[in-house]
Amino acid sequence: MKAFVFNGPGKKAVEERPKPEISAPTDAVVKLLKTTICGTDLHILKGDVPTCTPGRILGHEGVGVVDKVGNAVTAFKPGDHVIISCISSCGTCEYCRRGMYSHCINGGWILGNRIDGTQAEFVRTPFADTSLYHAPAGAEEDALVMLSDILPTGFECGVLNGKVQPGSTVAIVGAGPIGLAALLTAQFYAPAEIIMIDLDDNRLEMSTRFGATAVVNNKDGNAVEKVMKMTGGRGVDTAIEAVGVPASFITCEDIVAPGGVIANVGVHGVKADLHLERLWDRNISITTRLVDTSTTPMLLKTVQSRRIDAKKLITHRFKFDQVLDAYETFGAAANTHALKVLIEF
Amino acid sequence: MKAFVFNGPGKKAVEERPKPEISAPTDAVVKLLKTTICGTDLHILKGDVPTCTPGRILGHEGVGVVDKVGNAVTAFKPGDHVIISCISSCGTCEYCRRGMYSHCINGGWILGNRIDGTQAEFVRTPFADTSLYHAPAGAEEDALVMLSDILPTGFECGVLNGKVQPGSTVAIVGAGPIGLAALLTAQFYAPAEIIMIDLDDNRLEMSTRFGATAVVNNKDGNAVEKVMKMTGGRGVDTAIEAVGVPASFITCEDIVAPGGVIANVGVHGVKADLHLERLWDRNISITTRLVDTSTTPMLLKTVQSRRIDAKKLITHRFKFDQVLDAYETFGAAANTHALKVLIEF
Amino acid sequence: MKAFVFNGPGKKAVEERPKPEISAPTDAVVKLLKTTICGTDLHILKGDVPTCTPGRILGHEGVGVVDKVGNAVTAFKPGDHVIISCISSCGTCEYCRRGMYSHCINGGWILGNRIDGTQAEFVRTPFADTSLYHAPAGAEEDALVMLSDILPTGFECGVLNGKVQPGSTVAIVGAGPIGLAALLTAQFYAPAEIIMIDLDDNRLEMSTRFGATAVVNNKDGNAVEKVMKMTGGRGVDTAIEAVGVPASFITCEDIVAPGGVIANVGVHGVKADLHLERLWDRNISITTRLVDTSTTPMLLKTVQSRRIDAKKLITHRFKFDQVLDAYETFGAAANTHALKVLIEF
Amino acid sequence: MKAFVFNGPGKKAVEERPKPEISAPTDAVVKLLKTTICGTDLHILKGDVPTCTPGRILGHEGVGVVDKVGNAVTAFKPGDHVIISCISSCGTCEYCRRGMYSHCINGGWILGNRIDGTQAEFVRTPFADTSLYHAPAGAEEDALVMLSDILPTGFECGVLNGKVQPGSTVAIVGAGPIGLAALLTAQFYAPAEIIMIDLDDNRLEMSTRFGATAVVNNKDGNAVEKVMKMTGGRGVDTAIEAVGVPASFITCEDIVAPGGVIANVGVHGVKADLHLERLWDRNISITTRLVDTSTTPMLLKTVQSRRIDAKKLITHRFKFDQVLDAYETFGAAANTHALKVLIEF
Repeated sequence: MKAFVFNGPGKKAVEERPKPEISAPTDAVVKLLKTTICGTDLHILKGDVPTCTPGRILGHEGVGVVDKVGNAVTAFKPGDHVIISCISSCGTCEYCRRGMYSHCINGGWILGNRIDGTQAEFVRTPFADTSLYHAPAGAEEDALVMLSDILPTGFECGVLNGKVQPGSTVAIVGAGPIGLAALLTAQFYAPAEIIMIDLDDNRLEMSTRFGATAVVNNKDGNAVEKVMKMTGGRGVDTAIEAVGVPASFITCEDIVAPGGVIANVGVHGVKADLHLERLWDRNISITTRLVDTSTTPMLLKTVQSRRIDAKKLITHRFKFDQVLDAYETFGAAANTHALKVLIEF
Repeated sequence: MKAFVFNGPGKKAVEERPKPEISAPTDAVVKLLKTTICGTDLHILKGDVPTCTPGRILGHEGVGVVDKVGNAVTAFKPGDHVIISCISSCGTCEYCRRGMYSHCINGGWILGNRIDGTQAEFVRTPFADTSLYHAPAGAEEDALVMLSDILPTGFECGVLNGKVQPGSTVAIVGAGPIGLAALLTAQFYAPAEIIMIDLDDNRLEMSTRFGATAVVNNKDGNAVEKVMKMTGGRGVDTAIEAVGVPASFITCEDIVAPGGVIANVGVHGVKADLHLERLWDRNISITTRLVDTSTTPMLLKTVQSRRIDAKKLITHRFKFDQVLDAYETFGAAANTHALKVLIEF
Repeated sequence: MKAFVFNGPGKKAVEERPKPEISAPTDAVVKLLKTTICGTDLHILKGDVPTCTPGRILGHEGVGVVDKVGNAVTAFKPGDHVIISCISSCGTCEYCRRGMYSHCINGGWILGNRIDGTQAEFVRTPFADTSLYHAPAGAEEDALVMLSDILPTGFECGVLNGKVQPGSTVAIVGAGPIGLAALLTAQFYAPAEIIMIDLDDNRLEMSTRFGATAVVNNKDGNAVEKVMKMTGGRGVDTAIEAVGVPASFITCEDIVAPGGVIANVGVHGVKADLHLERLWDRNISITTRLVDTSTTPMLLKTVQSRRIDAKKLITHRFKFDQVLDAYETFGAAANTHALKVLIEF
Repeated sequence: MKAFVFNGPGKKAVEERPKPEISAPTDAVVKLLKTTICGTDLHILKGDVPTCTPGRILGHEGVGVVDKVGNAVTAFKPGDHVIISCISSCGTCEYCRRGMYSHCINGGWILGNRIDGTQAEFVRTPFADTSLYHAPAGAEEDALVMLSDILPTGFECGVLNGKVQPGSTVAIVGAGPIGLAALLTAQFYAPAEIIMIDLDDNRLEMSTRFGATAVVNNKDGNAVEKVMKMTGGRGVDTAIEAVGVPASFITCEDIVAPGGVIANVGVHGVKADLHLERLWDRNISITTRLVDTSTTPMLLKTVQSRRIDAKKLITHRFKFDQVLDAYETFGAAANTHALKVLIEF
């Protein structure tokens, strides 16, 4: 089969690989219908993710058709259309029993990282019963690809952790795909204000179309001042960090109201200053989270009932034999205005 | 001043009364701009509410302008436009400190019940600092009248107690004003399905316009069967009782899914059968609640940010000198299709 | 092997049966070390549990040693000492993913009910990875038997559902084994008062030894009056029903304070009157629950750290060849003062 | 009257002052019976609290007898024995309505800071109805002094924010008075392990007497290593920071388990490093809080029902004319082993 392979920092290729086999009784093999590329895949290609070694097939998102299942798989059978979760959950360990699948001691984020992933014609998915989800008959499969990772990430790490509520005021720092996923799913809770902060006018314009009530371009570095003015000096109930750098985290520290939450979604490479000398008495919470995908069933229902139009996040479409073009387009998002690129088999 | 007065079962009149005075340092006197009629007012007129004695000025909803304040009132001053909460909260007792204002030992539902109410040119409101809310500059005052009682009742007793969630399935038994208020505010949480059940096709049609995803006319008594079919035999996550009779409560018992909630909103005059022999192992919750109006600030923000169009509930408008007509229209809702009738001064 | 068998209403016997085999890859076979008898077993023997058919080996509690495992079992291996949960959880279905194992669509309460149980030398346990728990090295195995059912039942259905809190006032109606399990586990939350209500002075005396702060014998039918007096007319924050008859449920309705919870633990055979005409405006919750055993890991830690002495519930000990005597003793609890009877192999 | 006065950095004196008067209708004047000294008072004396200006009478803790009340005070009358909360709550503002009294826009921590405090024969307490609590008849008033500040601080900021649960593992960094208050109140929730970390063997010995299950002296800087070993490499569910310096906060970052909470209690003067590069995917929460004293009624019940022995925190006793000695003893805690010093009038 054809597969997109990471061959060490800066080296990527489409290669011919053997079709994966069932190796544990809880495995499934899934034939891909659609996949996509995540910002994390770009990090891997740069060499920033040491757990992902050269020779790895990348990709942790996708929908497909079950091809084979191990003898302990009971919830899926060949022919079933499925959503592949970016998180593999054994369903058995202490963390899985608490719904914290991200920290599954037997799984977690392994697809396209520690084991081969979904940017290939077939993928082996461990713990199929607890890591795949049935695609409803008649569902738009493009939208379902957004359920593998980006929607639950924005929703769980940003919106749920951020305790967005009817009438509350939310700011999202970073209007990339993940910030926009938080923006879309924040609207489940009818907040009064959602302020998007970014440096890119195109992304801010898109934010407005996606439901932001206000946008702030922080090119001049005065986002904090503007947000404080918009909120009557009070600050925001929820500040969602969706970039992953110290400056945007500190912006969140500066705009969170007493009693508010800073929900970190961004992937950070370095430490940030925590201004406890100002925050110790502000009654705030700061949360971090790797997506658990525990809300996938809930999100699936919101997609099915059209409470959310997840396809909006898809800006470009490619065939799998154009996967290198897809990476180029996604990697040059500032110019191409790409959010999610859909890759079809 | 003119006032609408309950003179004993079946007897009502517009009478001339003295303008109320400040009698405690925490009082305000408010000049009414708009008021409305509640189903409870009809109960009082029938003689069903023993705490309300003949001679009482009715009404517990309204917006107005502060006329006078006692010397301990600090949050309001003459000239302020205010929403009058149906619940008077002392802010001091054990229940108020827990946010359970409905059970305030010094207040609670007293307006238009134990003390004179808002269907008059002026009203004395006790505990003004904790029982009035500032009407925002430029707000639609018609919509704000809905914040006195009906919106917080549907929201707190039905939606919040019912734990409505993104993607969940909700049924509301009763599509009168209070059921519709629950329907409107349930949409804050993006449930996948909201099924309205009633006997009146007009109300069901209105439900569809207000956002119901399905409607069931229970004239033939098979609502349970239909709801179970709609939900694949599973039942609903949230069943909201918005009628106040045993039959509709038992419908809720019959349609609630394992792990679900029955949120009672209706005012009941008799007991109902609780089928514990079927429910003891179903992991359900049943909640009751007199509205606390603790969510009034939250709801005010949703109205201001247009997350909800509260004016939709208003079907008829009267001047205060037509208050008897207003009662007639509201009392004959089956024919007049009245939901809330707005009375302007 | 020897097994205790239900042979139809009123008929029980110790019989020779074949040792169970692995029949699904997720099964284990466990050699019993200790088991016990549950009130439910007595219900089965009376013929009250239609899902349990003649020929069934009873028992859903116990500790043992793993004898064999299916090829998909990864968390247990032969020789491991284990606690057998009364609830079999597939770990995969919608309910298991929500932690509501009691409603597992592939399992639930099946041991000693729909499939053969633990009152035998060996038992086949389905879904071993998610239905067995490792017995810690050096643990008192007598105490661990209490973790199969009675402690999680009292804790989950009574204490957690009842929202017991530091400083709160709790009443438990019924001082049988399950009421006492609620009493023991309620103390995890440091309530100010725990009032036990029963008709049996011996059980009330035992309640005092187990930590009740007050006891009420309801022989004269004035428990409600006494509890209201003890609580200054306010009622209790949490009322736990641990009998399973309408009268005790109605006692709970009569003593619950505004804002309080009635947590039903009892198994009910008939409906009860729900006095909505008094309760609709009291802001109360009523909960029902079949134990999920989702707190078994938590409870295991409290037993291991000696925050609770679970062995206290064991009043009698038998060898398995005395199992008929054990049933006789347990069935005549009023005379024998039996709580839990331990049966050793 | 006699009063203890801050006269600028390093300058303190007992001075003669006029007895305070009622200045607002919601005020009370309270005659002190007992007071105590807080670590914050020492900070003020050093000049570290700019809101507290020279000439201020210090003190924000105490029990006393109501001497006079303003005409809007309804819950208290002269002669009532009361606990004075360290937080003054207007009961009316947005924050008070949310139970976040610490951020009351009209009050908050003002006693002994922005207005004269409790280290004097009399004190004026604003917002008496919502800032005083009735001392129960027959209560030990020494214990009640601990309810003004130290117990709610340890409980709210440490234990509640830290989500201590039955069976969980807790570490408290800092075994001073506030860490010990957290230790005492953590036991309301029956955690399996409470590990105290400090540099002072005397305090650690006291911790063991107060209920710690393990103690770690961090003199050699290897507390992290020891805690990780004690917890099998997993870390703690709750890490409570009770010192207020970067090093102890970072210790918390290093020992918190995935899914755990860092609850900050300490008063910080400088920023700390937040190692987001390690924590972004650990699913942790960090909380900060100035005590709200919203749990005072709950804590009062636990003291009254002897679930906690708050007097344990009192190590020394003085008469008010020895207040300078009391400060000396409290200020030299390392040598005197002082926790709380009780000052009687």
